[in-house]
Amino acid sequence: MKKFAIAIHGGAESIKHSELDQKTEKLYRQGLADALKDGYDVLEKGGSALDAVEAAVNSMERNPVFNAGRGASLTQRGENEFDAAIMDGNTLRVGAVGGVRYVQHPITLAKVILQKCDHCLLVGTGAEEYALANNLPLKGPEYFVTPEKDEAWREKQHKRLEVKKTMPGSMSDTVGAVALDINGNLAAATSTGGLTDQLKGRVGDTPIIGGGTFAANKVCAVSCTGEGEAIMRGVLAHEVYAMMKYAGNSLHAATDKAIELHADKLKGDRGILSMDAAGKAAFGFNTGFMKRGYWAADEEPFVALWESEKGKKAVKQKEMEK
Amino acid sequence: MKKFAIAIHGGAESIKHSELDQKTEKLYRQGLADALKDGYDVLEKGGSALDAVEAAVNSMERNPVFNAGRGASLTQRGENEFDAAIMDGNTLRVGAVGGVRYVQHPITLAKVILQKCDHCLLVGTGAEEYALANNLPLKGPEYFVTPEKDEAWREKQHKRLEVKKTMPGSMSDTVGAVALDINGNLAAATSTGGLTDQLKGRVGDTPIIGGGTFAANKVCAVSCTGEGEAIMRGVLAHEVYAMMKYAGNSLHAATDKAIELHADKLKGDRGILSMDAAGKAAFGFNTGFMKRGYWAADEEPFVALWESEKGKKAVKQKEMEK
Repeated sequence: MKKFAIAIHGGAESIKHSELDQKTEKLYRQGLADALKDGYDVLEKGGSALDAVEAAVNSMERNPVFNAGRGASLTQRGENEFDAAIMDGNTLRVGAVGGVRYVQHPITLAKVILQKCDHCLLVGTGAEEYALANNLPLKGPEYFVTPEKDEAWREKQHKRLEVKKTMPGSMSDTVGAVALDINGNLAAATSTGGLTDQLKGRVGDTPIIGGGTFAANKVCAVSCTGEGEAIMRGVLAHEVYAMMKYAGNSLHAATDKAIELHADKLKGDRGILSMDAAGKAAFGFNTGFMKRGYWAADEEPFVALWESEKGKKAVKQKEMEK
Repeated sequence: MKKFAIAIHGGAESIKHSELDQKTEKLYRQGLADALKDGYDVLEKGGSALDAVEAAVNSMERNPVFNAGRGASLTQRGENEFDAAIMDGNTLRVGAVGGVRYVQHPITLAKVILQKCDHCLLVGTGAEEYALANNLPLKGPEYFVTPEKDEAWREKQHKRLEVKKTMPGSMSDTVGAVALDINGNLAAATSTGGLTDQLKGRVGDTPIIGGGTFAANKVCAVSCTGEGEAIMRGVLAHEVYAMMKYAGNSLHAATDKAIELHADKLKGDRGILSMDAAGKAAFGFNTGFMKRGYWAADEEPFVALWESEKGKKAVKQKEMEK
């Protein structure tokens, strides 16, 4: 059996079981299962980890229950702005976009940049024009803005009038995926609509290589979610890599340590999805809730939401190689 | 004597002695000396490392011989787009901007973001509007575009017609500063106009925390220059920190190793300026040329350009504490 695996996340949040209705919970689990399958299918056919993480993230970008692509959060101006990054752990090639609008699949634009562009990170209208030049599908706001997100935005505006201060929102449920393919290559991808009510032009950790996204063969692939500013300041994706490479930590230990790192200075929700060179995955989070899933070669997939399901947070390929 | 120190760079380039005229060389040395003095003055009066690196970078942003602020490189469209980041090693607070135009001092906008904004990184018009809201001075293209950079841009357009391919330019002479203040706080700042002829919206490593800029008290402060894409992919500023923190490398060793890291996959010019918690500085570069300077408490400052002056590349505070 060839070894391959994919793991995904749909964001970590401080939310209680009582705050989530059953219908939404079901949509989350189904969305995770769908994304996992899209990524797994690529790997099973011998496709690359890079294509697999793109496929998994594409699925969540299409699905309005996740904060990426369609259904993403709105800025203070009531507009979508997307960040995304993808990294090939074999070549260390990178593609990333920040503050783009209209691009149906931000992670696919990031992959085109990785494959074709001399640059790694494009932002704003420059990134949108690059999407146009490469014939990527564009959509207007009526595609991206769901009634739920529109209402969340209106509520924020109402609250701002009441409390007279900026309240950067939650809804930081960024999506991401990491994968190992049959050739031993690792890849990571992350895509987000940012924070509800964020300032125009705000870019979070998602497209920051080493911040929200990182991959290097033989060590790990990482995709983060949570409070972007704290993750960016702590360079947390690269911390997982550094603690494994230089301090000899296991994937598990490095991920857990990165969740706690600089906790005196960096507040807020954190979720870290990581995968090592053996296809083992770790899900670290300091919230009660992280949408997540894992599927390794010839095994049953699983998806999980609550911390109480955390027994499954670290999945060892070894356990699966019966 | 209270210990404090500042070190700066004005970019690393693959350039030969014969390619640089004496007049320009003199302007470089004078510009470095001026920036060093502006930063040192802040520290000498008991000011913070954060204010010192801002002052040093402001000086180079004002000076048209450096590729930051006035005199910065032009994109393919013949327009300036600035990236900048500043980080406080004590609080790990960060401010960064990408793809901004019109802002006279991008590093000062970054510092205002660090101090006042709930976000860390703003790009494009969102960042410009934040500058407006904070009454920072704005300037039109006639202020930023010097005849030299305008001519360089025209030459690129001419060459593109001839060779029919995009040629991302050199002129990657980003500026940066690192400092240690009397309270033992480290800070780093980097500011750039990017590459001559870069795509609209391209953001390099400069505003990427962990990529081109990083600072954490008790370990190091780092500011990078050179080929932004390679530095971003390698997360090189954070590599210096990680190799010191987790692998026990000295500042010197970590900086030299970061210059060579992933050299099989990441090509191009690299320059890394770093400073440890004792105020020692290291200048690593794989080019023949890196504009640089250092000034520690009660010592004579020095500035240097060529590799042959490299004996001075690592300056130990210890040597200075007579």
